[in-house]
Amino acid sequence: VVVAGPVNTSLTAEILAIGSEMLTPFRIDTNSLFLTSRLNDLGIEVIAKSVVGDRPEALVAALRLAVSRADIVVTSGGLGPTDDDLTRDAIVAVAGVTSVEDPEVVDAIARRFASRNMPMPDINRRQAMVPVGATVLDNPRGTAPGLWMPVGTRVLVALPGPPRELKPMWDDHIAPRVAERTGRQRLRRRTLKIAGRGESHVDEIAAPIYGRWRSHVPAIETSILASPGQVELHLSAQGTDVDQLDRALDEATAELATALGRPVFSTDGRELEEVVGDALRALGATVSAAESCTGGMLLGRLTNVPGSSAWVTGGIVAYDNLVKVDQLGVDAQLLKEHGAVSEPVASAMAAGVRARLATSVGVGITGVAGPTGGTEAKPVGTVVIAVDGPGAAHLVRTVRLPGDRAMVRQMSVQTAMDMLRRACTPPDYNLG
Amino acid sequence: VVVAGPVNTSLTAEILAIGSEMLTPFRIDTNSLFLTSRLNDLGIEVIAKSVVGDRPEALVAALRLAVSRADIVVTSGGLGPTDDDLTRDAIVAVAGVTSVEDPEVVDAIARRFASRNMPMPDINRRQAMVPVGATVLDNPRGTAPGLWMPVGTRVLVALPGPPRELKPMWDDHIAPRVAERTGRQRLRRRTLKIAGRGESHVDEIAAPIYGRWRSHVPAIETSILASPGQVELHLSAQGTDVDQLDRALDEATAELATALGRPVFSTDGRELEEVVGDALRALGATVSAAESCTGGMLLGRLTNVPGSSAWVTGGIVAYDNLVKVDQLGVDAQLLKEHGAVSEPVASAMAAGVRARLATSVGVGITGVAGPTGGTEAKPVGTVVIAVDGPGAAHLVRTVRLPGDRAMVRQMSVQTAMDMLRRACTPPDYNLG
Repeated sequence: VVVAGPVNTSLTAEILAIGSEMLTPFRIDTNSLFLTSRLNDLGIEVIAKSVVGDRPEALVAALRLAVSRADIVVTSGGLGPTDDDLTRDAIVAVAGVTSVEDPEVVDAIARRFASRNMPMPDINRRQAMVPVGATVLDNPRGTAPGLWMPVGTRVLVALPGPPRELKPMWDDHIAPRVAERTGRQRLRRRTLKIAGRGESHVDEIAAPIYGRWRSHVPAIETSILASPGQVELHLSAQGTDVDQLDRALDEATAELATALGRPVFSTDGRELEEVVGDALRALGATVSAAESCTGGMLLGRLTNVPGSSAWVTGGIVAYDNLVKVDQLGVDAQLLKEHGAVSEPVASAMAAGVRARLATSVGVGITGVAGPTGGTEAKPVGTVVIAVDGPGAAHLVRTVRLPGDRAMVRQMSVQTAMDMLRRACTPPDYNLG
Repeated sequence: VVVAGPVNTSLTAEILAIGSEMLTPFRIDTNSLFLTSRLNDLGIEVIAKSVVGDRPEALVAALRLAVSRADIVVTSGGLGPTDDDLTRDAIVAVAGVTSVEDPEVVDAIARRFASRNMPMPDINRRQAMVPVGATVLDNPRGTAPGLWMPVGTRVLVALPGPPRELKPMWDDHIAPRVAERTGRQRLRRRTLKIAGRGESHVDEIAAPIYGRWRSHVPAIETSILASPGQVELHLSAQGTDVDQLDRALDEATAELATALGRPVFSTDGRELEEVVGDALRALGATVSAAESCTGGMLLGRLTNVPGSSAWVTGGIVAYDNLVKVDQLGVDAQLLKEHGAVSEPVASAMAAGVRARLATSVGVGITGVAGPTGGTEAKPVGTVVIAVDGPGAAHLVRTVRLPGDRAMVRQMSVQTAMDMLRRACTPPDYNLG
């Protein structure tokens, strides 16, 4: 691909969320994650993000600072009809222009109210005040239109706050306009998702490889993100030749996947429950689970996936030991001898639920989630997981998980999901 | 209570999160929620929040703007030993001072490494560079000490990024220092949590009441936050007489709870699963659940609560209809006649799991979570929930829930939890 026309290779952006509710301890701005992702896709780096409330001076100062240093400034919120909605006035102040009522916008808002058999409140006329020089952006999902306002060589984009209004407006109106400014510059990404290995372990193996790709042409940037039981390697490359970027990213991804081996469960964006579902479907297999300390969370996660009724049959939550005996057929003697949190009991739970629900695979989880119930031999965080099937296969593992009750339960589910994945994929399975 | 000494009643704060990872689409700053809550507790309003990366100019500009308009500026992150850690240098630039190596800090860092039998890397000496005029704040959980730096009448507080380091440092070192500046000014809060009513319905009932309290002395501010299946009314009042604030908040809370009635499930911070657990425990009752479309999520939520083994016996996830027949004893004829998503089947599931697991109460959930499986008569979002017990009580409801698969499942669980709450609390139960 040959690049045509002028290309600006280093546009920057700043994101401003406007609204006092996001300055409370209860709400966080998440629009900026969506906007960052979309800006990055166009090769634009986000250099700062801010949240400001309904103080006009603070909003004008933040906008002024943003326009002084970023090529594209995106605001969300503050476009409603009330006195608290200050974005339009702040843009007028920063751009040094006046605003005029746009009769077409008044009509559009009036029609929106009319379609619901309501008169347009006078207050909504405020939403039709347009700064001189701004382009009005249609918002089919709300009354607040957006604004595209050039300020010198920079541009100020104002979008409404509700995500279901903001997201389609970005894709329909803003992305094409911003793309004109970036030329053909694009950012492409790949993600390797890894289960059952810590961040430092992954980095030790991956660093020599991504270190080399960093000085490749095109250069590949890598970042590591760790969450409980999962590590992600995010690869990105910028340039104008999308095919070349994709080839380099695919090659680097394959090299990392080969080096990291079986712990890599996805390089195509799929979550662990989707990978497990696809593996079960490929085998024509079904799964059931017997859960104690996770209380149904494993089955809840397996059934997150649309269509999972094709491979999830169901399960038994055996929180009480009597349920383990009565509903799963676990031998009472086994419970007495080894305790509920033991490999023989986890194995019996897995085999029991598999037999009772007549599935190809059965999973058993039993453990001490805490905060109480720990002993010296089996402290809080001790969890035993068994996978019975497919066929004659049988895995059982005892793990000691860190953290509080919620963390222990979440990591138990993650560990069980990964054991299930390994049980259902051939050992020579290679993601590269 | 009589106020002694000078009281500044209108301190403001600004929060800056420092770190390029929070400018990606993958990570969000959550320290600011903790910091906002703690600042609010001291009667301090947060007027802006920002995230900046590892560009020195951007960081210095953001700090300068913050110090120009807020009395207290709190930063998190950027205190590590590498070149990317710019907070110390930015403070030096903004305060117009120099920095010197503090031998005590060098010693403390060296001791930390020595305790792990490691030599201190030379690079960590950077963490001992202290801006002249700053007080060093001990960080027992990491190598990065914090800084308390007066700038004119304002103060700049620098804390490390990891929440497990930042939170105790705030409580141990910063809160007492900030409290000295605010005098006895405090903010007190109450929260009413409401299930099964929409935001506008709640506001219609609550607005005349909180409107009156807004002009009361002390004034009570109210905000409404809605999430799927739950509405929260947050009340707050500021002043120096904590007893007077608490009395007014308790009175307003009681008045709102009485007006809103049964949908209010908590005024003391408890979540719905805690309220349900407490109600079951008070009755000496146990619960089991038979879940289809929610696939174990209800049981997962019930067992979130530490000690829930006292009231949750377990359950059966009957994702496949055969499980409904074999494990729950649902009449196959009933399934054929009414379909799996029907009131007779939900009732039979609830009664079946109650009988099989011998619990005081049984819950049955069956529905169409989507995206496929909907029909004209039972579109996606149709969910039937039954609660059998305690005693002869039997509730069954068919609801049409909005949103995607995840939302339908989440709201199904919320609806079932609320039906369970109502079944287990006497109808004249009054939270006021």
